[in-house]
Amino acid sequence: MKNYKPKGRLSAIEYINGVLKGDRVLLSRAITIIESNLESDKALAKEIIQAILPHSGNSIRIGITGVPGVGKSTFIEAFGKHLVKEGHRVAILSIDPSSQRSKGSILGDKTRMEELANLEEAYIRPSASGDTLGGVANKTGETMLLCEAAGYDVVLIETVGVGQSETAVHGMTDFFLLLMLAGAGDELQGIKKGIMEMADMVVINKADGDNIRMSEMARLQYQNALHIFPQSESGWAPVVSTASAIKNIGISNVWDEIQKFKKLVDENGYFLKNRNHQQIQWMYNNINEELKNLFYGSKAIAKHLKVLEQEIISAKISPVKAAQIVLDEFKKTL
Amino acid sequence: MKNYKPKGRLSAIEYINGVLKGDRVLLSRAITIIESNLESDKALAKEIIQAILPHSGNSIRIGITGVPGVGKSTFIEAFGKHLVKEGHRVAILSIDPSSQRSKGSILGDKTRMEELANLEEAYIRPSASGDTLGGVANKTGETMLLCEAAGYDVVLIETVGVGQSETAVHGMTDFFLLLMLAGAGDELQGIKKGIMEMADMVVINKADGDNIRMSEMARLQYQNALHIFPQSESGWAPVVSTASAIKNIGISNVWDEIQKFKKLVDENGYFLKNRNHQQIQWMYNNINEELKNLFYGSKAIAKHLKVLEQEIISAKISPVKAAQIVLDEFKKTL
Repeated sequence: MKNYKPKGRLSAIEYINGVLKGDRVLLSRAITIIESNLESDKALAKEIIQAILPHSGNSIRIGITGVPGVGKSTFIEAFGKHLVKEGHRVAILSIDPSSQRSKGSILGDKTRMEELANLEEAYIRPSASGDTLGGVANKTGETMLLCEAAGYDVVLIETVGVGQSETAVHGMTDFFLLLMLAGAGDELQGIKKGIMEMADMVVINKADGDNIRMSEMARLQYQNALHIFPQSESGWAPVVSTASAIKNIGISNVWDEIQKFKKLVDENGYFLKNRNHQQIQWMYNNINEELKNLFYGSKAIAKHLKVLEQEIISAKISPVKAAQIVLDEFKKTL
Repeated sequence: MKNYKPKGRLSAIEYINGVLKGDRVLLSRAITIIESNLESDKALAKEIIQAILPHSGNSIRIGITGVPGVGKSTFIEAFGKHLVKEGHRVAILSIDPSSQRSKGSILGDKTRMEELANLEEAYIRPSASGDTLGGVANKTGETMLLCEAAGYDVVLIETVGVGQSETAVHGMTDFFLLLMLAGAGDELQGIKKGIMEMADMVVINKADGDNIRMSEMARLQYQNALHIFPQSESGWAPVVSTASAIKNIGISNVWDEIQKFKKLVDENGYFLKNRNHQQIQWMYNNINEELKNLFYGSKAIAKHLKVLEQEIISAKISPVKAAQIVLDEFKKTL
């Protein structure tokens, strides 16, 4: 596939029909409109999203995270190929608030999952670029809707960035998969607190060769640990398994577990309840971020906040009073 | 001690001097000013806080949480008495956004920790009332500053409410203690996800009689589980112990661990770093809550949001567009 560069824009209806027909080139171009920061593209993007909205949602959305070195790309490649073999169409997206499109991450993503990228039934799209996690999450979320409308029935969203990306991915997916390595300890430093408790499944990757015994021990440890932690609202008890993505071992088991999960949450009503909750929360996230932008976007206020922070640390002013001062200042500008 | 009812107000300087001298009656009256929602009291409260601010901070702040039935009051009574015996002055506060002062929670709190309440070196103050967690947290936080200025060198803040209270308490304390019971399983349902990972120490309470063996097993389970979870930024590895508050077993050990923690975080600089971070975050929490109030406080907007939520669920509108519509509406009112 050639490196595609859009020269002009089509009409909204052309993008919409292209996406609904599953045309990969038009899907890619429509996503480019979604990701664009040009004002003219924003109106077009809204029209496209509005039209494809009723055709979205028919997929299982799977979030995948893990620290660098855990073998995420290899796992996604093996997992994606398995899904295609099972008759699914798979879209692979990522969230990376720090990414710069100009750094060539498209090429990077395609290279690191070469075999998968060559399959007609798989669609790989690198992370949208953007300054804020909220902005990137919006773009990834809307890209997900487009992929669903284009007929992809499994969407994998991987986190690339660190920090809050996991929470964003957890907030837009049905099933959250955490990849780990045996030999718990130092690698854990990269996992933020709270991430573990989001996991519906933990996969100990690189369970091959000399590593098999350690991986099995790690599996038991995690399984015991997860058992005593609070149960999820979904009613699903998180499972821990081992896998070797590079040797294609334990990959089909991951999909089996996800299907068991899907059956459970379809039957107990959690799937729909959670989807509705996520959609509504998506609106509120946008509102809350924009409210913060209104306030923190002011240079005068940002400068004042830095001064107040120092005064708070040196006990010259109470945090509550400091907030009031700067809020009064803000209200005067309204 | 008589049930005190304020008839009038003193001058700011009288409250300030009273608090700094450790006068319990004036401390209580000053806290009443802090908790008051009267406009005239708010100015007085600000003056008091501003004056005592440089005298605050000289305590170790300990958050205590656990589901109902875990024996929290009995534990706090035993722990408080131990601290007093060790020469400390202890203030016990609580966060309960659902509390109604009129329901007589003062009497309730004093009754449930009767022996501790009778000690000169212990000061028990029930939760401030309020509609929002943010408002209650502000009042509890400022009450904590007053207690410190009055010479209490250990502040215990317990959560009474459920849900987000734990996060609020975690955000204003140095050390976070989670009380649990043996026989993990059903009791865990009451603990929200993420709480476990906040704990610096887990105490399995009611470890007495027939329960000792189960408690020891639970201790090992939790200890193993916590070990494989991500390490805290403080550098402290969470500890798990057993205790029987009612038989006064294992109580001194809790204080020993807290002292070890304090030594570690004093030496590695985390104590001060975290305190500064918490103080600054306190300001930002106030700002963010007030920004939300500006927006969500509008009845027209609240009504519109309900309509948009339904349109989102029925795929008539995208969450991003819904947010834009209501934000545009809000901006027109500014």
